[in-house]
Parts: sequence; C-alpha cells; structure tokens
Amino acid sequence: MNAAPHFQRIALIGFGLIGGSIARGARAQGLVSEIVTTARSEKTRARVAELGIVDRVVATNAEAVRDADLVILCIPVGACGPVAAEIAPYLKKGAIVSDVGSVKGAIVRDMGPHIPDGVHFVPAHPVAGTEHSGPDSGFAELFINRWCILTPPEGTDAGAVNRLREFWAALGAKVEIMTPDHHDLVLAITSHLPHLIAYTIVGTADELAQVTSSEVIKFSAGGFRDFTRIAASDPTMWRDVFLSNKDAVLEMLGTFNEDLSKLTRAIRRGDGEALFEHFTRTRAIRRGIVEIGQDSAAPDFGRPHANLEKKAE
Amino acid sequence: MNAAPHFQRIALIGFGLIGGSIARGARAQGLVSEIVTTARSEKTRARVAELGIVDRVVATNAEAVRDADLVILCIPVGACGPVAAEIAPYLKKGAIVSDVGSVKGAIVRDMGPHIPDGVHFVPAHPVAGTEHSGPDSGFAELFINRWCILTPPEGTDAGAVNRLREFWAALGAKVEIMTPDHHDLVLAITSHLPHLIAYTIVGTADELAQVTSSEVIKFSAGGFRDFTRIAASDPTMWRDVFLSNKDAVLEMLGTFNEDLSKLTRAIRRGDGEALFEHFTRTRAIRRGIVEIGQDSAAPDFGRPHANLEKKAE
Repeated sequence: MNAAPHFQRIALIGFGLIGGSIARGARAQGLVSEIVTTARSEKTRARVAELGIVDRVVATNAEAVRDADLVILCIPVGACGPVAAEIAPYLKKGAIVSDVGSVKGAIVRDMGPHIPDGVHFVPAHPVAGTEHSGPDSGFAELFINRWCILTPPEGTDAGAVNRLREFWAALGAKVEIMTPDHHDLVLAITSHLPHLIAYTIVGTADELAQVTSSEVIKFSAGGFRDFTRIAASDPTMWRDVFLSNKDAVLEMLGTFNEDLSKLTRAIRRGDGEALFEHFTRTRAIRRGIVEIGQDSAAPDFGRPHANLEKKAE
Repeated sequence: MNAAPHFQRIALIGFGLIGGSIARGARAQGLVSEIVTTARSEKTRARVAELGIVDRVVATNAEAVRDADLVILCIPVGACGPVAAEIAPYLKKGAIVSDVGSVKGAIVRDMGPHIPDGVHFVPAHPVAGTEHSGPDSGFAELFINRWCILTPPEGTDAGAVNRLREFWAALGAKVEIMTPDHHDLVLAITSHLPHLIAYTIVGTADELAQVTSSEVIKFSAGGFRDFTRIAASDPTMWRDVFLSNKDAVLEMLGTFNEDLSKLTRAIRRGDGEALFEHFTRTRAIRRGIVEIGQDSAAPDFGRPHANLEKKAE
C-alpha cells in the first residue's frame, strides 16, 4: 500500500453529505494540515463552524481556495461551471482542482475551460451516499469500500492524478479511472435510472384515487419503502444530474421501457413461464453484488428486527 | 391487550420464509401445543425435521391437517386452490383455515368454494418478508410491527376472525381487516408494482451492450443495489402474484407509465423546475414512512459501515 498523501491545505466548497464526510475522513486519517470550508448559505456556514470539524469557515469561494493545494467542489453539478469561473483567478499554481459530481461529461465541459494553466484538473465521483443531506449528515466512514471514479481529461499530469487517487484511497475508497463518457453511461444505469424510477413510483403512489396516502405509508414494508429511501435524496442534486446527463439517461430509459413492455405483456397474457424465467435471472445479479461486498447479505439490508419478548409493552 | 390465544394443534402447509417464521414465532410465544408441518419436496421436509422447530413433519397435506385447529397454507398463491380441494375432506369441524398469500381476491375465489360447512375460512396476508426463501430463512421476529391484513368473506364467524387476529397479534403484528378487492389494490401499489419495476430494471442492466454486468455490479452502490434486493425475491411466489392480481397491477402500471412519461418529458425539455418540484414532494412521503415506524431512519437502512481504522489490512 502507498503512504497516505498529505496536503497542507484543502478547500471544500460546499459542506453537505459528501463535503462533510470528506472533512471528517481527512481529519480522522490525518491527510491534511488545514481544512478551509465555505458554503452558500450563512446558516450552513454557521453550523459548520459550530461542528468544529474544519479549521476555518469563510464567506466566499475566492477566499476558500486561496493557497489551497487541493480544492474540491462538493456542490450540485449545475453549480460547478459558474464556481470554476469564479475561483479561477485565485487558484494557487500547482493546486489540484476536483469535484464530486455524479455526472462527468458536463463537469469536464463546464469546468475545464476555466481551469488556468499550471493548475491540475482531476474530476472525481465517489459512488457513495445516503438519503440524508446537510452539514450534519456526513460521516468519516462513508467512502469505505465504495468506488471513487476519476475522469482526468487527456494530458492531465500523472502525478496530480496519483495524489488524488491516494487521497481517496486513504478515505477508504477503491479508485478507478475511466473516460467521462463511459462514466456517464455506467452511472446512468446503476444510479440515475434507479433514482428516476423510484421518484416516479413514489409520486404515483401519492396521487392515486383508490388507495390513500396513509395506506401506502402503512403497508410500505411490502417493497415500496425501499424505493422511498432513494426518492428522498437531495432534490437539487438530482435535478442537476438529470439535466446534465440527459442523453445517457434517455437512452437507458428507452431500453427499460422496452423491457417493462415485455413483462407487462407477459402479465396480460398470463405467461407464467416468461415471468418465472425473468425473475430467476435477476436473482443471480443480486448474488453477484453481495459476493463482491457492495451490499450486505443480511435480510432487509440488516434492518433491525425488534425482539419478540420485548414487544408487549 | 388480549390474552394470547392457544391452539392445540396447528398445521403449516409449506415451510419457507413465512411458514418457518410462523413456526418459530408461535413456538417462542407458546401459542400452540403441537405444530405439524409438511412441504412438497422431500428435501425440504428432511431439512425441517432436522431443524427441530416443529413437532412432526408429515409427507402429505391430508395427514398434516388432520385434527388441526388452525391450518395455514404458506405456499404460493397459485397452489392454494388445488391444496384447498385436496385437504377439504380431512379438515376438522370448527377448524380455522387461513393462508399467507400476497393476493386475496384470487384466494377467496380459488379456496372459498372448497371449504366445508363448519370450517372457518379467514384469509390473511402478513405484509412482511425478506429477499431470502427456504426453510432456513425464517425467524421469530419477522412479523413484529408489520401489518397482517385479514380479508374474511362476508358472514365469517366473528369468533374465528378474532382468534386469528389474536394469533397474529401475539406474533408481533398489527392486524387490519379489509375487503379482498381493496387489499389487492393497496398491495398492487405498495408491493407488486415495486417488485415488477425492480425486476425490470435489474434485467435491463443485465443485457446492456455499452456497460458490462461486472461494471453494473461494481458500481451498484449508487442506487441500483436497493432494487436488486427486491428483484432477488422468490420467483415462483412472484410469478403467481402477477398472474393472480393481473387487473390491479395493470391498472397501477398504467398510472406509473403516465407519470414516467411526464418526468421523461421534463428531462428531455430541460425543465428543471418540474423535476425539482416532483423530487421535493417524494421526499415528504419517505418522512411519513419513517415517522410511523415502517422503516429505519438510519442511513442506508442501517447498513453497516466499516471502521476507518480497521480498513488497512
């Protein structure tokens, strides 16, 4: 294993689930001497100062990045272009600029042109998260055993890529490098489409005439609740994901719709064999995910089950 | 609280996740003097005997129900009609016959006509489960704080309904009574449609040309893995659910498709406002589910997160 990297000063622009988890993890692992943070709202900045995890909370992006060796934008994808333009004049020569956005093609397109010569631009996407957001939601262990995908543009300094790779590895992540376009296709199916579907079905359930919302909530343990967790993710972040990865999402959606039509037809025709064959195949995929440690094999993701003896209160 | 009911002998036909959990729970709570079980395959029967949870494992359904006060069919919905016909001549006068099927209209239609006079027919559906199946997968706590819906046909003996209600309450469940048709609509949206969608998307991911299956598995933590858990549920059970609740599922699917088209159109047109509004609304529904205790508020359903210090092995 490589030695953990050390940065003199890192700047985190944005302190939500991801920014807050990077700060906590970097501190816990001793990866940095000083962490400077900013956030758009005064309320968040006040809360971050109160939490006492970072060294300094400043009011502007310009101030945050001054003299920083590593700058990470932890903000929605749609805000990254404008912020890159804003901080460009203040970036230190030799600094690494990165982000954590769930879309990479748009990030390279929107941020890339603003990055000055002599500053290294290494976009990154830690594939980790929970349904919570805000400055209190982060935790140092969030990235352990999760993947972090780097998508450096061609010609990026290999030393800079390596330092960022080691930084993420020290936070517990497994690091992979791919092109921005391939990243966006992979994430469209593994993350963006699942979110879109979950958002849709939870909305559908909310507006039915025949079944009340309180019934939906009451009987959600039959499957529905697993979708609501995903559909509780941060609305601003996800709006930006769909707007900026439009083509790949629409492409995956087309395939999904065809497959849904096939299963619908099987139901309508009473074709039990086709259903059984499909359901057997999907079971094997779950097995693969549990085997490589990307999920828990415990039933219900290890959701706690109360004790029978304790029930009668 | 009512005193827990006591049955002299209960017969469980089928010993998968649900049958096995009933046996374990009834034993733990002392609800029964004798549990007799059967299962279709010899392998399962041998394993059940080995587990030592029940008093007797017998080879036929007829033998299982003889002299039982409570008979529960814990088998796929499609098998319930034929089994009802098979056991009818052997049922004890005054016995209660029930099931655990996820569809209730079809159960009433298929089982009802076979139940002899003097035997009480009280269909039931415990809305609880995990993605595991088989005789080893059950546990006594599965039903705690979950709903169990009873759908007794009109004119069913109130005393029998009450005894079954108390039995489920003693296993930890909250019991509700509704008509079979309403049950099937409620479950179509809270359980059947989510399963169909999950089965579809997991299948879609498996057959893409641009993204390999191993990439899908690797990067599944971005949302996809939550769908795979549902899509790993028992194929036979789910085939029967879709075949026997066809109308309600197709109706909900129609509404879902309309909503998905609306969101797709918003993405295609770049309508961020419509997306943001929708995503904000769905978040509130998640809050409702957590508030009434039908899910854990812990991030990732409380999935374990490894410790940073322990990581470097």
